[in-house]
Amino acid sequence: MALRAALRSKCGLPGLLSQLSSHSSHARVCVSPVLVAQQRNNSTTPKVKVEFDQSTGVAVMHMQSPPVNSLSLDFLTEFCINVEKLEMDKTCRGLIITSSQPKVFSAGLDIMEMYGKSPERCGEFWRAVQEMWLKLYSSDMVTIAAINGSSPAGGCLMSLTCDYRIMADNPRYSIGLNETQLGIVAPFWFKDTMVNTVGHRTTELALELGLLYSPSEALKVGLVDLLVPEDEVLTTATKTMTKWLAIPDHARQITKSMMRKPTIDKLTSKREADIQNFVSFITKDSIQKSLRMYLEMLKKRRG
Amino acid sequence: MALRAALRSKCGLPGLLSQLSSHSSHARVCVSPVLVAQQRNNSTTPKVKVEFDQSTGVAVMHMQSPPVNSLSLDFLTEFCINVEKLEMDKTCRGLIITSSQPKVFSAGLDIMEMYGKSPERCGEFWRAVQEMWLKLYSSDMVTIAAINGSSPAGGCLMSLTCDYRIMADNPRYSIGLNETQLGIVAPFWFKDTMVNTVGHRTTELALELGLLYSPSEALKVGLVDLLVPEDEVLTTATKTMTKWLAIPDHARQITKSMMRKPTIDKLTSKREADIQNFVSFITKDSIQKSLRMYLEMLKKRRG
Amino acid sequence: MALRAALRSKCGLPGLLSQLSSHSSHARVCVSPVLVAQQRNNSTTPKVKVEFDQSTGVAVMHMQSPPVNSLSLDFLTEFCINVEKLEMDKTCRGLIITSSQPKVFSAGLDIMEMYGKSPERCGEFWRAVQEMWLKLYSSDMVTIAAINGSSPAGGCLMSLTCDYRIMADNPRYSIGLNETQLGIVAPFWFKDTMVNTVGHRTTELALELGLLYSPSEALKVGLVDLLVPEDEVLTTATKTMTKWLAIPDHARQITKSMMRKPTIDKLTSKREADIQNFVSFITKDSIQKSLRMYLEMLKKRRG
Repeated sequence: MALRAALRSKCGLPGLLSQLSSHSSHARVCVSPVLVAQQRNNSTTPKVKVEFDQSTGVAVMHMQSPPVNSLSLDFLTEFCINVEKLEMDKTCRGLIITSSQPKVFSAGLDIMEMYGKSPERCGEFWRAVQEMWLKLYSSDMVTIAAINGSSPAGGCLMSLTCDYRIMADNPRYSIGLNETQLGIVAPFWFKDTMVNTVGHRTTELALELGLLYSPSEALKVGLVDLLVPEDEVLTTATKTMTKWLAIPDHARQITKSMMRKPTIDKLTSKREADIQNFVSFITKDSIQKSLRMYLEMLKKRRG
Repeated sequence: MALRAALRSKCGLPGLLSQLSSHSSHARVCVSPVLVAQQRNNSTTPKVKVEFDQSTGVAVMHMQSPPVNSLSLDFLTEFCINVEKLEMDKTCRGLIITSSQPKVFSAGLDIMEMYGKSPERCGEFWRAVQEMWLKLYSSDMVTIAAINGSSPAGGCLMSLTCDYRIMADNPRYSIGLNETQLGIVAPFWFKDTMVNTVGHRTTELALELGLLYSPSEALKVGLVDLLVPEDEVLTTATKTMTKWLAIPDHARQITKSMMRKPTIDKLTSKREADIQNFVSFITKDSIQKSLRMYLEMLKKRRG
Repeated sequence: MALRAALRSKCGLPGLLSQLSSHSSHARVCVSPVLVAQQRNNSTTPKVKVEFDQSTGVAVMHMQSPPVNSLSLDFLTEFCINVEKLEMDKTCRGLIITSSQPKVFSAGLDIMEMYGKSPERCGEFWRAVQEMWLKLYSSDMVTIAAINGSSPAGGCLMSLTCDYRIMADNPRYSIGLNETQLGIVAPFWFKDTMVNTVGHRTTELALELGLLYSPSEALKVGLVDLLVPEDEVLTTATKTMTKWLAIPDHARQITKSMMRKPTIDKLTSKREADIQNFVSFITKDSIQKSLRMYLEMLKKRRG
């Protein structure tokens, strides 16, 4: 039922298909909001490439999971292992997250992790989504999102966990927590992260309507901090990092924890209930049926 | 004591009188902030007219209680019954609230409900004010305020409960929680609703000073979402509703509840104490004396 | 360790020295962020001068502790006694706080209160800082900060406790909670006060980076409410006070308490733990060593 609504939405399926199959450049690049049926890629190519410059103490993490860096269980696992490694390396003080895929930062959660899977597997997936958020939102490193493409749903969430967000000033890109447009709901900790960033009322409007913002709109409401030309996103992130690293780590880390700990503690204390809640929702017959229809339509269009 | 202050304020009595008795068009229409001594209207004309379009699923509720849609016990009772009917009708998905009275959306609480009444009656009145807020702020319907006139105090509160606020771009109208200007205090749930809309600092300033905002000021601080020419308020509300109804109801409703439930639960759990608090304040000799003087002055000016 | 970082920072020591020893006018007046090693002044000249106009009910408190109104234990004690006197005088309804020192409102906490002192003395000092905040943030009087100079760290905190902030529009002045720049951390109640004023995200950025804002930047983020030419700061504060005093005291006071009580209660309930926390931090060998080096460098530069 929920996903049928997505099929009717202007931005759901057609956006995804144009992203996956064409080079249309007329409309905003509306990559698969929330749910991505990613082509399986069985190669052992790492989904994440880390470049760590020991002279500066800054690591750049390139997400390189074609076509749209969707957040599959494999991707999230690899992502979190890499973040944890950097976190434990005391010489690494800053982390820049960016995408190696054209036009997209990350398209959000992978639909295939939710369709036809056992409750156990769904639970494992959701725990991995939580883990990504927990690791990033509480990171002792300075974290900067170098958003060089569209960043809907889970991709937006990943950006929101960072200390600073720099986005490519390309009006064809968009960013937002657009879950409701597909008939699903951003969980409370997505909401809390957004409230901490843009305030209660903007979050209420954004989440109720599932708004995707253009870069300039996102800047205006505070969803991102800075817009730069597309080819300057990463260099600007590097320059910005230098300013952040001029602050003594210890004082910055205590301050960051003071700002974010209540929000982190909330998910930590409700983690199992949140997993249960997700699993019982996603394994409903009606939701699974909608997912099947959605996937079949995807196949036909590809065919 | 409290209301004596109101008599001294520039915006209190003269504003009300000009609204009730004249057609002065030089000053901002400053309809009775907070307290309205409405001429009794014993006719059985409904105080609220509901037009429900089953083809769109949208109801328009016209407030038509002359002269200024003040919130009397009768008005609130009729209003709530109508909201509840629509809420229970699963074919009704959206509610637009507007006024049939010229120049005013709603002028707020009716002073006559607070003067010379028994504590029981005062308590009954306050429970009805709470009920209006609870019903609207937690409504499963999309609610849009089509604010086609001034909207002080209780009228502003009613607007704030809606999902979206569209106001007539007429500089003679104003909106705000101006209780302190009259020496009384907006209760915590008025405050919470405003904080959720415009944030802590703007609320602090607005409530301490009892600020009434012009439409353009209200737009700037986020008290309303959109300004349109006066004759386009209702049509714009209807168009806006269409966009909101494109979002799957279930996802939007869960999201709305997630944003508002803590605020609603707070009043629900303190409801009786809040009534007691109001009754003990309003039945004080000093307050009743002030109300009498206020009413006598009203009579003289009318005479 | 913490203060070593400060010595490396561009804004720390040189800023202080230029303020104390020169008349350089090329750079923003960056008075001693956070920690001030004030020249001892053993005279019995009052550190605070109060002018109370009984005809208006408004007191003006001039901070006159050379050179930069640093918040020593003596200063804070004298300041709090004067605030308390005014608070208890029911004819005093409004308080304007301003500086008699050139170029600076207040430079923040006095470093000499933290160096080589016993834990008991450090605790006494911190209790006085808390007391200043508690007295001002919960004052029944209308409080207006007439910020006629730079206002870093503790000076910024003092401003934030007021009902309204008017700052001199001089781009050489700055305001902000810049503690992290020196390797120390603003405590939770500094943070809470700032969140209540400018919201969560702006506070997160400001505190993590220890940002000092120019007056126009401060106005933009809401850290101050109004900018006026330097010679009009006090007269504008007086005019603004008149508007605030037009509101009935009782209603305004209840409203102010409703907005601020949760934040005040939080410190009140954690007051002893907060003192312990400060004392154990500031008496660490590493911190004391850094303070010694900082002070020695100050002496050399003066020599």
